Amino acid sequence: MKLKFKDVDGAIVAPPGFRTAGVFCDIKRLGTGKGSNKGQKRDLTLIVSDVPCAVAGMFTTNQICAAPVKVCVPRVAKGIAQAVVVNSGNANACTGKQGMKDALAMTRLVEKTLGIKDGYALVGSTGRIGVNLPMEQVNSGILATAPLLGSTVEHATHSAEAIMTSDTKPKQVAIEFKLGGKTVRLGGMCKGAGMIQPGMSATGARPAALPQGLHATMLAFITTDAAVEAKVLQAELREAVAHSFNRITVDGDMSTNDTVLVLANGLAGNPKFKVAGKDFEIFQAALTHVCLELAKKIVRDGEGVHRVVTVRVTGGKSLAEADAAARAVANSALVKTSWHGGDPNWGRIIDALGYSSATVVESQVDIGYSAPGSRKILWTLKRGQPTKATYKALCAAAAPEEFDLHIRLNLGEGAALMYAADLTEEYVEFNKGDVTDPATLGG
Amino acid sequence: MKLKFKDVDGAIVAPPGFRTAGVFCDIKRLGTGKGSNKGQKRDLTLIVSDVPCAVAGMFTTNQICAAPVKVCVPRVAKGIAQAVVVNSGNANACTGKQGMKDALAMTRLVEKTLGIKDGYALVGSTGRIGVNLPMEQVNSGILATAPLLGSTVEHATHSAEAIMTSDTKPKQVAIEFKLGGKTVRLGGMCKGAGMIQPGMSATGARPAALPQGLHATMLAFITTDAAVEAKVLQAELREAVAHSFNRITVDGDMSTNDTVLVLANGLAGNPKFKVAGKDFEIFQAALTHVCLELAKKIVRDGEGVHRVVTVRVTGGKSLAEADAAARAVANSALVKTSWHGGDPNWGRIIDALGYSSATVVESQVDIGYSAPGSRKILWTLKRGQPTKATYKALCAAAAPEEFDLHIRLNLGEGAALMYAADLTEEYVEFNKGDVTDPATLGG
Repeated sequence: MKLKFKDVDGAIVAPPGFRTAGVFCDIKRLGTGKGSNKGQKRDLTLIVSDVPCAVAGMFTTNQICAAPVKVCVPRVAKGIAQAVVVNSGNANACTGKQGMKDALAMTRLVEKTLGIKDGYALVGSTGRIGVNLPMEQVNSGILATAPLLGSTVEHATHSAEAIMTSDTKPKQVAIEFKLGGKTVRLGGMCKGAGMIQPGMSATGARPAALPQGLHATMLAFITTDAAVEAKVLQAELREAVAHSFNRITVDGDMSTNDTVLVLANGLAGNPKFKVAGKDFEIFQAALTHVCLELAKKIVRDGEGVHRVVTVRVTGGKSLAEADAAARAVANSALVKTSWHGGDPNWGRIIDALGYSSATVVESQVDIGYSAPGSRKILWTLKRGQPTKATYKALCAAAAPEEFDLHIRLNLGEGAALMYAADLTEEYVEFNKGDVTDPATLGG
Repeated sequence: MKLKFKDVDGAIVAPPGFRTAGVFCDIKRLGTGKGSNKGQKRDLTLIVSDVPCAVAGMFTTNQICAAPVKVCVPRVAKGIAQAVVVNSGNANACTGKQGMKDALAMTRLVEKTLGIKDGYALVGSTGRIGVNLPMEQVNSGILATAPLLGSTVEHATHSAEAIMTSDTKPKQVAIEFKLGGKTVRLGGMCKGAGMIQPGMSATGARPAALPQGLHATMLAFITTDAAVEAKVLQAELREAVAHSFNRITVDGDMSTNDTVLVLANGLAGNPKFKVAGKDFEIFQAALTHVCLELAKKIVRDGEGVHRVVTVRVTGGKSLAEADAAARAVANSALVKTSWHGGDPNWGRIIDALGYSSATVVESQVDIGYSAPGSRKILWTLKRGQPTKATYKALCAAAAPEEFDLHIRLNLGEGAALMYAADLTEEYVEFNKGDVTDPATLGG
C-alpha cells in the first residue's frame, strides 16, 4: 500500500505521551583520561512514555551480541515496556558478566528514578567494543536526564544527538496519518555511520539462510501513540525492517549492537486491529516509511560517504539469489571505489555478480543507471554486450550524489535492492584512527 | 613434507629448455588515444619450451570468466602445451564472441610464428574488463617478441614486467632441488595488485561449497624441467594452489581472469612418478613452496598495501567454518582499516567472527598477535575476556609491516589461514581513478 504521510516536527516526542532528554555525562572519554571530548557531546538519553507501551524489537544476528541486546530480547518478547535508556561512546559489547550487570543496573536505575515497573525499561549502547561501561558516569547521566524530560523539538534533537557516535548529524523523522478514524503519529530517530550492514531478527537468532556478509552499529528508536497489540506490532516491524534497515550497507560490517525498538502507547485511542486488514496495512505502510527514511539517512551520513547508490536487482533465480547479487555489488571494494571516482565501470559490477552466490549468466545480464526512483534508465550493458551509450553519458549518469544502479539477471522472478555507499579515503582515514589517542579509535 | 630448496636466478627460464621475452606493443593505451603510457611499459610476453610439456592449470571460479580462460580450460584438460602468450592492459573479459575470436587468434599466431602444433599455445590476459583487444597491437607484439626469446635473467624480468598492471614490481622466484636422482628446477612469475581473492578450480567450475566472497586478477606462470605426467601435475597444482593463491586476499574481489599454469618439459630426465610416494611428495613441497612465495609477493605488493597480516584460525567446528571465519576477518573493512592504523582492535575482529558463517561462541574465543611464523603469542583475548596485556604491548605487536593474527575458536579441529592486507587511503585513491583520463581506470 502506497500512502502519503504528513511530515511533522518533534521526532520521537511528536506522538503524544512521550518525553525525552539527552545529556553529556562523559562516557565518550573511554575512561582513559586521555581522550579528547570534542566539545563534550551528549552521550546519554532517556525516552519515556506516560503510560506502559506495547513494544516490538529487532536485534543484530551477530553471534557476538552486546549485553544491552541480551537484556532487551526477553523483555521485548513480553511485549510491554515504558522507557528506554541509551548511551553512546561505549557499546557494552564483549564485556562479560560485568557488562550484563551494568546493562541491568542501567534499567533498574531508570525504573526506580522514573517510578515505572520492574522490567519496563529497555537499554541500548553504541561505541567502542570490549571496554566496561564507566558506571559512575552512566548513573549520574541517568539521574541528570530524568528531571530534564520534555516534549519539545529541542528535547528530541538533544536525544538524537546523544545516540550519535561518528554520525555528523542527528537523524529524525515524524509523520501524521489517519488510523481507525483517529489522528495518529509515528516518530523516530536513529544513528549509524560505520559498521553498517544490519541483519536483524526478532530474537537475535540467525535465520536459516543468512544474507551474505551482514554487518555495523545502527540503533533506531520509534514511538507512536497508535494502539497496536505487541504481537501485531512485532509483525509490522519485522516487515518494515526487512525493507529498510536490513537493506542498507555502508561497509559490510554487521555490528554486535544493532537494535530497532518501537514503543506504542495507544493514547490515540484508535480501535485495535489484527494482522491483515485495512488498518494493519495503513500502519504497515507508515512504519515502513519511517524506517526507510531513517535507514536512508544512515547511508547518506555513513563514514566518509560521498555517493549513495540504490542497487536494484531483478530477474534473479530466487529472492535469495537476487539478495546475494545485490549485496555482492553493494559490498565490493572495487565497485565502491569506482562509485567514489564517478567511474561507470560495469566490468567491476559484473565481476562482483559473477563471484556472488547468485546464478549469473554473462549473456543475460543488463546493467544501467537512472536518477533515484526514475524509470528512465541509461543501459550500459544489455544481454552481456556494451550498448551504444557514450562514455560521456555514462559518466554523467554515475556523477550525481545519488543514483540508482539497475541490474537485470534475466533468469527468474527474484528481486532485491540495497541502499549502498561509496568507499572513500575519508572512510579509511577515519577508521584507522590514531593509536596514540585511544579516543579517536572507533567501535 | 618440509624441505629446504636452493634459490636460483632466472625465474621462469631457470629450468633448462624454456625461453621468454617481454615487449611493449601499446595495449595499455586502451584504444582511447588519450591515455598516458607511463613510460611505455611492457605489455606482452611469450613463454616457450623447446619441447612439448605436460601442463596443469587452475582457473577463476567466477561465473563471468574471460575469453582466455575459456580457451585455456579445454587445452589444459588435454594435458599438453608448449607456449603461453600473455598480455596486460586489457583483460579480454566480457568481450563476447569477438573476445573468443581474439583469444583464439592470439594462440594461432603464436603457434604459427613459433612453429608449434595447433592447440599447443595457451593465452592469458589482465587489465580492463569489457573492452575488445586492440588486435593490431597484439599481433605486432607477438611477431616482435618471437625473435627476442632467450633464457637470461633479463629475459625473465622483461617477461615478469610485461604481465604487470597495477603491480609496482615484477614478482619472480626459482628453486633447485633433487628429484629421482636428478637436479630439477622450478621457476615462476606472477602478477596481482587488485581484485585479489582468488578461488580457483581446475576447470573453472565452482565447488559445491564456495568459500565466502571470492575475488582479483592474479596470473601465475610456472615452469619446470621435471618429468611429471599431466594428471600428476594437476593433482600437485590443485594442492599447491589450495595452500597458496587460494589463501590470499587483498580486497575480497575475485577476478574474471585468475589463472595459474604450470609447464613441465621433462628435460631433467628424472623417472616419472605417480600420485603418492616420495618423489610425489618432494615435488609437491617444491611446487607449494614456489606458489606460496609468489602468492605472498602478491599480497605484499597489493594496491596501497602497507601491512600484511597472516590470519591463523584454529579450533573451528570444521575446516569450512575455520575458512569462513578467516575470510570474514581478512575481508572486513573495519578490521583492515584498523590494521592500517596499527590499532590492536580485537572488538572489530570478534565482531567479524560473529557475523561470519562460522559458529563462534564469545566465551570461547582467543585472539593474539605474534611475529610472522613465531609461536610466541601475545594474547589480547582469552576465552572472550581481555587479558592483562598492556595497550602499549598490543600496539607494538600490531605495528610491524608483517605480523600473524592468531584466532582460536576452541570449538573443534578446523584450521585455516589467510594472507591478508590492510585497507589504505592509497587503495581507494588508486581504484577510484580519474574519469577524465580513462587510462587511469583499473580493471
